[in-house]
Amino acid sequence: MQMKTRVAVNGFGVIGRRVADAVARQEDMRLVGVADVVTDWRAKLVLAEGIRLFAASDQAEAEMIEAGLEPAGTLESLLEEAEVVVDCTPKGVDIANRALYEKAGVRAIFQGGAPHALTGHSFVAAANYGSAFQRSVTRVVSCNTTATVRTLFALQKAGLLRRARGVLVRRASDPWESHQEGIMNTLVPETEVPSHQGPDARTVIPRLDVVTMASKSSQNVGHLHHWIVELTRTATREEALDAFRAVSRIAFVRAGEGVAALNVTAELMKELERPRGDMWEVAVWEDILTVEGRELFYAYQVDNQAIVVPENIDAIRAVSGSEREAERSIERTNSSLGIRSEFL
Amino acid sequence: MQMKTRVAVNGFGVIGRRVADAVARQEDMRLVGVADVVTDWRAKLVLAEGIRLFAASDQAEAEMIEAGLEPAGTLESLLEEAEVVVDCTPKGVDIANRALYEKAGVRAIFQGGAPHALTGHSFVAAANYGSAFQRSVTRVVSCNTTATVRTLFALQKAGLLRRARGVLVRRASDPWESHQEGIMNTLVPETEVPSHQGPDARTVIPRLDVVTMASKSSQNVGHLHHWIVELTRTATREEALDAFRAVSRIAFVRAGEGVAALNVTAELMKELERPRGDMWEVAVWEDILTVEGRELFYAYQVDNQAIVVPENIDAIRAVSGSEREAERSIERTNSSLGIRSEFL
Amino acid sequence: MQMKTRVAVNGFGVIGRRVADAVARQEDMRLVGVADVVTDWRAKLVLAEGIRLFAASDQAEAEMIEAGLEPAGTLESLLEEAEVVVDCTPKGVDIANRALYEKAGVRAIFQGGAPHALTGHSFVAAANYGSAFQRSVTRVVSCNTTATVRTLFALQKAGLLRRARGVLVRRASDPWESHQEGIMNTLVPETEVPSHQGPDARTVIPRLDVVTMASKSSQNVGHLHHWIVELTRTATREEALDAFRAVSRIAFVRAGEGVAALNVTAELMKELERPRGDMWEVAVWEDILTVEGRELFYAYQVDNQAIVVPENIDAIRAVSGSEREAERSIERTNSSLGIRSEFL
Amino acid sequence: MQMKTRVAVNGFGVIGRRVADAVARQEDMRLVGVADVVTDWRAKLVLAEGIRLFAASDQAEAEMIEAGLEPAGTLESLLEEAEVVVDCTPKGVDIANRALYEKAGVRAIFQGGAPHALTGHSFVAAANYGSAFQRSVTRVVSCNTTATVRTLFALQKAGLLRRARGVLVRRASDPWESHQEGIMNTLVPETEVPSHQGPDARTVIPRLDVVTMASKSSQNVGHLHHWIVELTRTATREEALDAFRAVSRIAFVRAGEGVAALNVTAELMKELERPRGDMWEVAVWEDILTVEGRELFYAYQVDNQAIVVPENIDAIRAVSGSEREAERSIERTNSSLGIRSEFL
Repeated sequence: MQMKTRVAVNGFGVIGRRVADAVARQEDMRLVGVADVVTDWRAKLVLAEGIRLFAASDQAEAEMIEAGLEPAGTLESLLEEAEVVVDCTPKGVDIANRALYEKAGVRAIFQGGAPHALTGHSFVAAANYGSAFQRSVTRVVSCNTTATVRTLFALQKAGLLRRARGVLVRRASDPWESHQEGIMNTLVPETEVPSHQGPDARTVIPRLDVVTMASKSSQNVGHLHHWIVELTRTATREEALDAFRAVSRIAFVRAGEGVAALNVTAELMKELERPRGDMWEVAVWEDILTVEGRELFYAYQVDNQAIVVPENIDAIRAVSGSEREAERSIERTNSSLGIRSEFL
Repeated sequence: MQMKTRVAVNGFGVIGRRVADAVARQEDMRLVGVADVVTDWRAKLVLAEGIRLFAASDQAEAEMIEAGLEPAGTLESLLEEAEVVVDCTPKGVDIANRALYEKAGVRAIFQGGAPHALTGHSFVAAANYGSAFQRSVTRVVSCNTTATVRTLFALQKAGLLRRARGVLVRRASDPWESHQEGIMNTLVPETEVPSHQGPDARTVIPRLDVVTMASKSSQNVGHLHHWIVELTRTATREEALDAFRAVSRIAFVRAGEGVAALNVTAELMKELERPRGDMWEVAVWEDILTVEGRELFYAYQVDNQAIVVPENIDAIRAVSGSEREAERSIERTNSSLGIRSEFL
Repeated sequence: MQMKTRVAVNGFGVIGRRVADAVARQEDMRLVGVADVVTDWRAKLVLAEGIRLFAASDQAEAEMIEAGLEPAGTLESLLEEAEVVVDCTPKGVDIANRALYEKAGVRAIFQGGAPHALTGHSFVAAANYGSAFQRSVTRVVSCNTTATVRTLFALQKAGLLRRARGVLVRRASDPWESHQEGIMNTLVPETEVPSHQGPDARTVIPRLDVVTMASKSSQNVGHLHHWIVELTRTATREEALDAFRAVSRIAFVRAGEGVAALNVTAELMKELERPRGDMWEVAVWEDILTVEGRELFYAYQVDNQAIVVPENIDAIRAVSGSEREAERSIERTNSSLGIRSEFL
Repeated sequence: MQMKTRVAVNGFGVIGRRVADAVARQEDMRLVGVADVVTDWRAKLVLAEGIRLFAASDQAEAEMIEAGLEPAGTLESLLEEAEVVVDCTPKGVDIANRALYEKAGVRAIFQGGAPHALTGHSFVAAANYGSAFQRSVTRVVSCNTTATVRTLFALQKAGLLRRARGVLVRRASDPWESHQEGIMNTLVPETEVPSHQGPDARTVIPRLDVVTMASKSSQNVGHLHHWIVELTRTATREEALDAFRAVSRIAFVRAGEGVAALNVTAELMKELERPRGDMWEVAVWEDILTVEGRELFYAYQVDNQAIVVPENIDAIRAVSGSEREAERSIERTNSSLGIRSEFL
């Protein structure tokens, strides 16, 4: 019987809590605990779910004790028990943690908020699982970049991709903090062209010809990407659809069936009884996708809270060395979460 | 062994699909099928879940067949198999259905969109279960009225209620249709004072001294009610809290724990892994509730899509005559759904 | 002294009331009256401003009289006094009006909601003023198409334009009706690729190589367009800026100065004391505009309520034959409205 | 001829810029300059309008010079030229400025964000102009409190007011910063009961029996107040309307005329060609106002950016001693701004 990989999660925000739950669903992993600094309802929930809660700092430990939360110890003691730590702390905190993990001899997975330079390796399972094998650190790229890489990699794999131009309309904050953060009744264009997602995709697939523009919209459901892709050759619409069908973690939705907007897709996920209504797949609108000559146009929705969860699970297997084959890890993750190629 | 009550659901919108699911969870009920006119993703989902789908009209049947949906028949054939039908059709359609159900000899439960006059009886389980016993029809009052009655009934039961004045800030549309309907960046005051909810509460508890004002806000999460209640006597804050604690389907949230707004409560429900993130309880903010002399002030959140679901289940037991005691039905419903008195 | 062109405006919605005001500001035009069917605050305002109000139908006349509004007559009598009518009625109504105007011998200007086929000529002043000279009908293209044509025409004129791909994120409803219409907390991708704006631009500039994708966002401020343009040659950023500077009705804003989003630009217009805060110019973000090799990337904001107003004024001069030279009409319109090439 | 009162405005945010403009419209005042720390579009606008711009600190002066703005000096030199300063700086900054103004021997007017204790006097013109006469400092209460005092004072003056209970639904941020701040798709109840507005009204009218609850909504247009007032006696609806008609700065709108929500009222102000679409009046919905026995129910809209502007102008006259009579100052202010008792 295979030993279970002992996994810690540092940072219990929207990503961390989902990664922790996903780890707990894997037969080959054991969640040894989670660490954070919060003492509010989220910390209470962790304990209510029977997960061991650690304080991310001495100060946090004191605050947790004062809030009556009974932490199991500090991050340091958590790391002692772990082989792999998934760092889901806020931007900036992650950088400081790098040395801590190294000192503790724990392999570490960072998220897309951290710079590529922090790890020297950026990860999307389908594209470069193998190169993360037994690495001491990697970085699961951001939600936007993950979706970008999954879809462009599919086109590249099918020999269709020449160059890609994307316009990404992002959500402005997550639902759990939308009472404190957000934008109202506006759109905010990103001032950098290319926006960071395009170049970031090249940390996973070097030499991609990709440029992105981005804007922020006043909603908290997810991201909507529009792509204009120059193909390597004249192709049919069916060939493009097949390229997406040939990989996993991309699924189609159809406006013609009433799944016509971000909110409907989100409702569909709730109807499918997914935990928290999560959508781990890139939801490509099948009936919007259009090919004109050598140009391909498509749009998809990204659940920014959930899409990186399966990548983190695969990254754990890769860095821990528990699974050498990308396909086997991906299949295992997909199956454990209930990832689909068709929603309906 | 008790015979299972055979239940049909007519109308598969946000209420209907939830009632259907809740019926399926009851040991003493059997969902014989659901009827609707839609042919889109929602109809596909019904079939995917193994529920029998009926067409609400001949035309709908033809459209469903054309859409490849294979309906099991029309509403009429569905009614032949049912003892109780829960009518969750849109306002206006319900009225026309009344005669149909009567002709089929099926007891019927309507929703709050229908006028009280249609049924002559309006229902909130805690307040008047008994009077619905073996009636041929009743009407579960609207989400806003259900919350109003639950909370005011609790105060009345504790001997504290003299008169209540409420200001209800409503959501503008449900999430599943917010890409087609809604209001943007505004508030819309209701032009009628009292707004209909106050008088409507008296269809359940006659002679309540209650007046409501209402407004509509640009969000789709739920309703927020503010109440100013004159008590029968000087009371303590603890007495008011105890009045709410003494009944079920009211639960406390605390802003001090970070559950500080509609969006956070909704996230908390998702974290509790409830189907669709539903909240069947009235969520009263414990740390906002204030008593000053003989006046009580409180605020709570209503999940307009879910709050009437347990009432519908109880109403089925009442009209079918399968359970005479309110307390036993309520307890059974609460237990089957996982209704709580504390979320955290 | 030049005779004043007698102008009627049919339809007093967001476009109609602005066109009427702009006509009143022209020294060479006289607003003979406006027609509509509404009897609410908007009709009262028309009269309060001393504008003659006509009823668009007999029924509307009766309703206006009943509402105490004293209309000056019906549309037919208004047309008798007019040389040119600007039709700003809702989609569908415009088509039926075509024959009416012809019969009355009045030249007519339709809006972008009407199909090109209705008029056989579509109009953007800078691009094709001359071809509308003394025509009996033309059509000012929609707000999105007007902005698209203005900017692409500028690039074409500078010899830079090879092909253009745009992603248009639209507002979901106008402020005055956002309490009744709108979308909430979502984005809705348009299902047609190309969205209609791209092909529509070719009704003004034939053979443009342009494709657009579009989405709708939950805000009522305006549209945000993102463009990816392949140039005819390698160019500098300054050359692209100069192409826009060389035409009127395009002005720059700068995120670096804090004008960083739709809402801020809208506030800036209010600070500039423009009527209703209107922005007649395309507001291109100067510091977002980027050139990489032969590719140009830029984003701009469109005030959908105001941008077509100057085009309507020019169209009046063109069809009435009162001014033969495009440049002279444009200059006159710009000056009368206070159109700027720099806001700050 | 009367000497003009020399007025400085410190803080050029949404309130400051409006107060500065209003000062410039008064025949008996002279705007000597405005001070701030910003160097962005707002500072450029000040200069473009020909207003003297001062730096609120030495550091701000350096930054302004670096940004090419040419400030006329620092706050200290501005104060040397002024008799009265209107402090519109952010919460917290105002407190520190108190000593500065005293040292400079300049009378000062603070805004509602400052605590009453800072000034010992809080101001609403109709209610207590006289007691501010020649005071060295006063404080114009917040937008919500100003509206509350105006309306309750009107009822009190008419001998009708016994006790008032209000529910205030606030906007979440102002339009000019809604790309950086805001809440999305939610409502946030205020955790304190009474919310601060009720007690704050008593700093102007002592012994008012008033309690307020409040919530924050995801919009940036303004506030919506709902009131439930116990009258001193049974009264008619007409008596209540007359009480409001008898004072200025309250005007009626009517949902029945289509002015049915915050957004429409805001549009109406734009149509009336007010600067920035400002509404200085409390807009009471005439056709919502209801009297039942001894209870009065009403709702109104508050333009949080504009409502305190006339109060600031009156406060300048009061503290400077340039006008002893409240009525004369109010009339002068109303006339200069175009304040109305009827919008339509």
